[in-house]
Amino acid sequence: MSNIPVITISREYGSGGRAIGEKLAKELGIPFYNKELILMAAKESGLSEEYIKKTEQMKATSFLYGLYMGAQQLPMNDQIFLVQSKIIRELAEKGPCVIVGRCADYVLRERDDVLNVFIHAPMEYRAQRAKDVYEREASNMVDYVKKQDKKRASFYNYFSQNKWGDARHYHLAISGQYGVDYAVEILKRAVETFPGGGR
Amino acid sequence: MSNIPVITISREYGSGGRAIGEKLAKELGIPFYNKELILMAAKESGLSEEYIKKTEQMKATSFLYGLYMGAQQLPMNDQIFLVQSKIIRELAEKGPCVIVGRCADYVLRERDDVLNVFIHAPMEYRAQRAKDVYEREASNMVDYVKKQDKKRASFYNYFSQNKWGDARHYHLAISGQYGVDYAVEILKRAVETFPGGGR
Repeated sequence: MSNIPVITISREYGSGGRAIGEKLAKELGIPFYNKELILMAAKESGLSEEYIKKTEQMKATSFLYGLYMGAQQLPMNDQIFLVQSKIIRELAEKGPCVIVGRCADYVLRERDDVLNVFIHAPMEYRAQRAKDVYEREASNMVDYVKKQDKKRASFYNYFSQNKWGDARHYHLAISGQYGVDYAVEILKRAVETFPGGGR
Repeated sequence: MSNIPVITISREYGSGGRAIGEKLAKELGIPFYNKELILMAAKESGLSEEYIKKTEQMKATSFLYGLYMGAQQLPMNDQIFLVQSKIIRELAEKGPCVIVGRCADYVLRERDDVLNVFIHAPMEYRAQRAKDVYEREASNMVDYVKKQDKKRASFYNYFSQNKWGDARHYHLAISGQYGVDYAVEILKRAVETFPGGGR
């Protein structure tokens, strides 16, 4: 029996949420899932990774896209969301892990052995990080970062019907502004002493 | 030199935020300010504690109240806010402490040795706590709790022009649903390893 929960991480673009999740998983010795979910969804659905990646990026509520797909079936991003949700539920069933993005908090809302985390940071920190760490280039980095946030918010709000970034949807929200190590320290403590449902 | 920051706590009604702040202050051996701020504001302003308490409860944007006061001076709750802000700044200057409510995060926004915390919890937990711990009585406890939240949000949004409960305004937001001790554990770790400005 382990008391380590499944940890879901939602994050603002450039906040370091992915790096924090990756380091946390490594230190806890549990699997980490981010891009891996795309590969898994590709295998499960028979679609290509490239296609899934592109569809994930699309605005969840595109009216034109709906028209293009016709009304005969669920829009493709809804279908991909369903496939990924099934994978996320199976992963959580297997044991403790860290899952980044994809509304995993919402997908796993019925479980009580899940710790939902939101990572954010001031705009200045994120724009700098996007440049230095992600090596992004944009004429206006602040606009670029805002646009990425908007996509994530739209994806989250569409599928979960919650409000992305509202503290009340997460057990723990941490500013990444003091670096990856600081957030990992706090999260490790939160995981080690987690009183939610064990297995 | 101490690296313990000033800790500000905003909290949803019934989430246990006050109790968490009180226990944290005790364990860190630093002062705790909540109702004490009313007494201090009374001393500083010459107004009675009772009057300050009542005025704090008033809706920050009452039009009728503004008419009643006349346009000659700032509304009384604005004046009390200014007095309390001055006291909060002086307390922070003196050294590490825990301050609950009163937009302390916003008042101290220029300092870098401050850790801003938001405590929330699911409605069910808070309604139960209001009954059991605060011994509140109300025919509809959920409505009562919502009303208290609304007052706090209105106070915070009016004076800070931020959005109460948005994770991005706080270094750390924690759900109090697992009890006071769990939140204190996480906060102690966040304080002990706090990398922000020392003194």
